[in-house]
Amino acid sequence: MSKVLVIGAGGVGSVAVHKMAMNPDIFSDITLASRRVAKCDAVAESVKARTGVVISTAQVDADNVEETAALIAKVKPKLVVNLALPYQDLSIMDACLKTGVHYMDTANYEPRDEAKFEYGWQWAYQDRFKEAGLMALLGSGFDPGVTSVFATYIKKHLLDSIDTLDILDCNGGDHGQHFATNFNPEINIREVTAPSRHWADGEWVEGPALSHKQPFLFDQVGEKNMYLMYHEELESLAKFMPEIKRIRFWMTFGDAYLKHLEVLQNVGMTRIDPVMYEGREIIPLQFLKAVLPEPASLGVTTKGKTNIGDIATGMKDGKQKTVYVYNVCDHEDAYAETGNQAVSYTTGVPAMIGAAMVLTGAWSGAGVFNIEQFDPDPFMDMLNKHGLPWQLKELDAPLDF
Amino acid sequence: MSKVLVIGAGGVGSVAVHKMAMNPDIFSDITLASRRVAKCDAVAESVKARTGVVISTAQVDADNVEETAALIAKVKPKLVVNLALPYQDLSIMDACLKTGVHYMDTANYEPRDEAKFEYGWQWAYQDRFKEAGLMALLGSGFDPGVTSVFATYIKKHLLDSIDTLDILDCNGGDHGQHFATNFNPEINIREVTAPSRHWADGEWVEGPALSHKQPFLFDQVGEKNMYLMYHEELESLAKFMPEIKRIRFWMTFGDAYLKHLEVLQNVGMTRIDPVMYEGREIIPLQFLKAVLPEPASLGVTTKGKTNIGDIATGMKDGKQKTVYVYNVCDHEDAYAETGNQAVSYTTGVPAMIGAAMVLTGAWSGAGVFNIEQFDPDPFMDMLNKHGLPWQLKELDAPLDF
Repeated sequence: MSKVLVIGAGGVGSVAVHKMAMNPDIFSDITLASRRVAKCDAVAESVKARTGVVISTAQVDADNVEETAALIAKVKPKLVVNLALPYQDLSIMDACLKTGVHYMDTANYEPRDEAKFEYGWQWAYQDRFKEAGLMALLGSGFDPGVTSVFATYIKKHLLDSIDTLDILDCNGGDHGQHFATNFNPEINIREVTAPSRHWADGEWVEGPALSHKQPFLFDQVGEKNMYLMYHEELESLAKFMPEIKRIRFWMTFGDAYLKHLEVLQNVGMTRIDPVMYEGREIIPLQFLKAVLPEPASLGVTTKGKTNIGDIATGMKDGKQKTVYVYNVCDHEDAYAETGNQAVSYTTGVPAMIGAAMVLTGAWSGAGVFNIEQFDPDPFMDMLNKHGLPWQLKELDAPLDF
Repeated sequence: MSKVLVIGAGGVGSVAVHKMAMNPDIFSDITLASRRVAKCDAVAESVKARTGVVISTAQVDADNVEETAALIAKVKPKLVVNLALPYQDLSIMDACLKTGVHYMDTANYEPRDEAKFEYGWQWAYQDRFKEAGLMALLGSGFDPGVTSVFATYIKKHLLDSIDTLDILDCNGGDHGQHFATNFNPEINIREVTAPSRHWADGEWVEGPALSHKQPFLFDQVGEKNMYLMYHEELESLAKFMPEIKRIRFWMTFGDAYLKHLEVLQNVGMTRIDPVMYEGREIIPLQFLKAVLPEPASLGVTTKGKTNIGDIATGMKDGKQKTVYVYNVCDHEDAYAETGNQAVSYTTGVPAMIGAAMVLTGAWSGAGVFNIEQFDPDPFMDMLNKHGLPWQLKELDAPLDF
């Protein structure tokens, strides 16, 4: 029976809290906090209606360490689950250290003024968490998160050694809008417009953003074009699974999405440096976010499925073998269950599971940890039980691209 | 010897003032005013360097009738030439009435919150100008302006009657940017995204914006795609030349321009209603303008030519005849002469000529006037002498589209 404080009441926070409420044996007492308490209250109302569970809500500015620490001291949770913006990871980690509480998140820290996806800032907290006897679990969403659990599962059960690992992220959903991003547009556009990068023979190989295009036939979705991208789990996979020679990440984008993105970049609307407007600094990308549809508002109209998984090639009993572990999630089913579409659902469920790992002690330790450092089995079990069942296929041959 | 006050120090204002300074026999004393006096001072410096003429500068908020009237009372011009934003036409007309001074502009009034190009607001000043014994000359740029002068010239000299009139506006220039508008982006995008409308058999015929596409081979530019659009001179031509059965306006756009425009519309960045951003109302189109390149900054890199003219079909001596009157203007030549590219040049020169018509008394009267109400000959003469020579061609047949 454990108390948890969730910070962040967007789509992912909403899904995580709904799923926690469905597991009262693990999450006995839930508080949801965010900058705008009205958003928390709306989630609480939905949780009550769908599960009968009453959760607490609170207002907090997670940029402010003192204010966040004061809330933690008041709520006295065993674990803080950070589902706010990645800009706020460090201030929430600081607040956890101040108050002696475990920490968990789904996306690595990123400064507001630079699109730089690196674990370095958070890994620098290693000694402080270790000395405090506290655990910080980083990146427990789907990607990063489940994709690394799949990799460690493959290593533990399916292959004796892994040579190449490809992560394939396909969103086959259609939201019926001209242009919208799947999650926070600001973070999404930063990620997509960054140079591509993959790991090969102990080195990072960089290329222009969205320059390597590859069609792929996704189970239950169909053929989609996917693009080589940088994604944050590449860094932790390269660090904790150094035997893998090549690690790549692919994400699907439709032609219309890319056309819109190209134009928005061309005209300067994706800039993250401020421009002067009527005597005030405004960051174009943040203003664009205000004009675009709120991702949460798309759930009700989104149809189709996501398909995210890992393809690994390596040796098994002296022979080359290629395996594919993936999950297919239906947008409409996800919306029916939690009021949020699959992109939020596939991140929010693993956030709940990661929190369960910490609270139940299935995963434990003092320090800052990535997903790849733990036994995948209890996590894989919970995926099957809590809405993200995974499938396993053996492929005839390695990927030919 | 006459004093003139020019309001507006953008590209058009800059060209007009340069050309006025080159004609000191007509413009003996020039004052340039705008919201930001630094812009006026920069123009004054260029005028001094290029022509040796010293002009005066002043600061004025042309939205403010009292402030504008006070400036007029101080400067005591014979004519105010309004080259500011079309939102400010009415306040400047009010200031002219208050101070007993003639008025001239190049674009009809438009409210800030509605993209509506109509002369109605300004025609409503008819009685007040008449009673004051003052003249207001509306729309003396290229289009509107020269295109109507061409039409009245055709009627006076080339055809006994006009059946159809097509105005063709081609900008074959390349500014080397991904996306930029030729003049004030706010006004340009409002105009381009409005429904198309043309005059046929005594009625307005409307269609979706940019839905009627037509390739056309422009002299000295080459083949370009042009699109049926609404443009403000259609209203005054239909009123003052009611015998013409069909009047249409066409403008060329490249595929890349249209792609950018489509996306900006799709995402809501061309909206003119405010969105809330950080507690303040911001109009997306105005913010977009702040991010896009300043049109004046494009002059130095713009190459190529504009070609704007009128094609009219009618009867001459009992036989059908089609004539084409047009001007070709070179961006680099325009920039070399005045420091502004051809889009500003082709509007600024006719603004100077319209002002000359009023100041010399070549055109006179009490009331509110459109270009079509006056003798085209002195205006056509000045076009040839002051940088916008026109050409006349007889076509073998009427347009087949």
